[in-house]
Amino acid sequence: MFDNIIEEVRRSKPRVHCITNYVTANDCANILLACGASPIMADCPDESAEITAICKSLVINLGTPSPQRLEAMLISGKKANEIGLPVIFDPVGAGASRFRTDFAEKLLKEVKLSIIRGNLSEIRSIAGTTSHSHGVDTADIVSDSSIVSCAALAEKFSAQTGAVIAVTGETDIVADSSSAYCIRNGHPIMGSITGCGCMLSALMGAFSAVSEDMLKAATAAVAAMDVCGETAAEHLLPYEGNAGCRSRMIDSVYRLSTEKMDTAARIEKL
Amino acid sequence: MFDNIIEEVRRSKPRVHCITNYVTANDCANILLACGASPIMADCPDESAEITAICKSLVINLGTPSPQRLEAMLISGKKANEIGLPVIFDPVGAGASRFRTDFAEKLLKEVKLSIIRGNLSEIRSIAGTTSHSHGVDTADIVSDSSIVSCAALAEKFSAQTGAVIAVTGETDIVADSSSAYCIRNGHPIMGSITGCGCMLSALMGAFSAVSEDMLKAATAAVAAMDVCGETAAEHLLPYEGNAGCRSRMIDSVYRLSTEKMDTAARIEKL
Amino acid sequence: MFDNIIEEVRRSKPRVHCITNYVTANDCANILLACGASPIMADCPDESAEITAICKSLVINLGTPSPQRLEAMLISGKKANEIGLPVIFDPVGAGASRFRTDFAEKLLKEVKLSIIRGNLSEIRSIAGTTSHSHGVDTADIVSDSSIVSCAALAEKFSAQTGAVIAVTGETDIVADSSSAYCIRNGHPIMGSITGCGCMLSALMGAFSAVSEDMLKAATAAVAAMDVCGETAAEHLLPYEGNAGCRSRMIDSVYRLSTEKMDTAARIEKL
Repeated sequence: MFDNIIEEVRRSKPRVHCITNYVTANDCANILLACGASPIMADCPDESAEITAICKSLVINLGTPSPQRLEAMLISGKKANEIGLPVIFDPVGAGASRFRTDFAEKLLKEVKLSIIRGNLSEIRSIAGTTSHSHGVDTADIVSDSSIVSCAALAEKFSAQTGAVIAVTGETDIVADSSSAYCIRNGHPIMGSITGCGCMLSALMGAFSAVSEDMLKAATAAVAAMDVCGETAAEHLLPYEGNAGCRSRMIDSVYRLSTEKMDTAARIEKL
Repeated sequence: MFDNIIEEVRRSKPRVHCITNYVTANDCANILLACGASPIMADCPDESAEITAICKSLVINLGTPSPQRLEAMLISGKKANEIGLPVIFDPVGAGASRFRTDFAEKLLKEVKLSIIRGNLSEIRSIAGTTSHSHGVDTADIVSDSSIVSCAALAEKFSAQTGAVIAVTGETDIVADSSSAYCIRNGHPIMGSITGCGCMLSALMGAFSAVSEDMLKAATAAVAAMDVCGETAAEHLLPYEGNAGCRSRMIDSVYRLSTEKMDTAARIEKL
Repeated sequence: MFDNIIEEVRRSKPRVHCITNYVTANDCANILLACGASPIMADCPDESAEITAICKSLVINLGTPSPQRLEAMLISGKKANEIGLPVIFDPVGAGASRFRTDFAEKLLKEVKLSIIRGNLSEIRSIAGTTSHSHGVDTADIVSDSSIVSCAALAEKFSAQTGAVIAVTGETDIVADSSSAYCIRNGHPIMGSITGCGCMLSALMGAFSAVSEDMLKAATAAVAAMDVCGETAAEHLLPYEGNAGCRSRMIDSVYRLSTEKMDTAARIEKL
């Protein structure tokens, strides 16, 4: 089902503009290079639109926000809309502060987003459903018993925004307004690696840059990340842990093929 | 002596708010995840207090300072005091510039700190003792011959501030106003890994979040970091160096148990 | 030909002030520690000159620019000129935005630079030759057929600026106004590691701090980085990729000797 998307990224080497937090920017750059894309990190309003204009997609990540970085997000988001680039939004920590939640609302109003990816708590928070948890990690994990309700939330939010919605955690859901997929890959250690979500959103930037179908691009990115997490965990030595696994996960993306994805991915249409 | 502190962190998964430099923020996030805590990096005055309010401890790190980040430190420090959270202060590079030293003084006046951790040069600089060296690395290392005088400095500075003082380097000293410990663990390669000190301060954030006794929490964090540095160095392959060791050190924290700490730690009461 | 430069760095442990982007700051700090230098990252105008004043060289890196960081670059650049420190300039992404290109021009006017290192596209852009490509990666690679014209560009730009010019990519050229060297080391995977260029510029900071001859220092740094890239690629396991290689490359610098450089480097005088 993946249409050689990773090979297409390696062939066309799309430039991906990332406006992202400083905690995981290095990992995002390396995972983009690992999949064959060419990252440009630039978060200054003075150059933001110009950088977007030479790229094939834009990834907006809400971690470590500052007024300047948020301004650059709006400027670049509008430029991307103007020239027809996919825009990925990762609402890191939405719900954890009014500052982040308010900005997410503003961005949703002013910029047309192609894909929104977050954990359940973050997606609930920006979809206007009350979230009783906060935080940047794996709060409110999608569980077997909640898959149906989560998919319904994602479909509804997609209908409101026009964006593909990816709710990721132990189990992942990707949906547009009419269909939803569940991806059952990944490994628990991924919950102990900072930036797994950020890296996945960056991958979505690369995949969406070479695809017409945002639902497919988002689903493929989720599957790619999860399969690479599994591969990384398999190769861990007895004295290795989350840091070693982070490195191997990026390495696995470097070696990933559509064939591997087709074999390993466990995806159900809901 | 460690009261199952690492297991307690893994059980309760405390959120730790880090206002920290961008050089080592990723390592700090990963070491917090490795020990079982949940990091939130946020350094913007617009959201800083709100983020602190949903956390169990606050880590303030003076690396790569900017006026905005320093403002967030004061705001969050006061909020943490208000709601009774432990505050860890890492005066990175204090003494290297007036800007850093002045801020450290201001913070000491306006915020009640629980633990202050730095190398000897940094601690001397903010304790008002003239430092003849500057810099962010291992200047003025605690040596066998200076242990007694360093412990005296730490005890005196603790009496002035009410904070536990950790002076770390080749040999480490942790003291409050009435007692001092010396920790003789660690490995020389740790001096070639950027962010060892920052990561240790982050660990103190996790340990202090689950402990009533700041002297124990700080001592346990120093021992944990040093023991993990030793474990990492033992596993280094012949062609590996400081970068590989950094990764393995975090991995060792991921696999650390109190049992391991009890066996490996070499701690003396002075 | 390398005059024991790496051993001299290890002996004198020069402090290197880096004003650099947040994407690769950690890697730059670790590679400086790996070669024996002592990094200080500081990008705030409020302390920038003071930090420069306690260092032995200054590295200015144009990635993720902000008005504050650029201001710090000018302040520190002038301070370095005043006290006679080498200044390395890495014009990351010059040509990709007016903001970066304009700043590069301003810096060239106001600060005397010792070494300028970039890829061909970046060097062309700030040398005033029209660049038809943009971006922060390996655009316009120096090829066998273009070595002579690239060396001519570098020599001319060196004559204009007084700086040694390093044009790096698959093949590397280092030149002053009267002589040029070509370095034929390195490995293709280095093009998939974010910050290879930044790390090389940081190494130049360390090497220039212990050398009177900027052409030798720059050439030695290029050779060191490339040889370490080769060593790292040799040790890659079948399931490793760009992230593992990044770590091993820094590790190789940690273990590098002049003897190794003399044996492995393939340098031609043009």
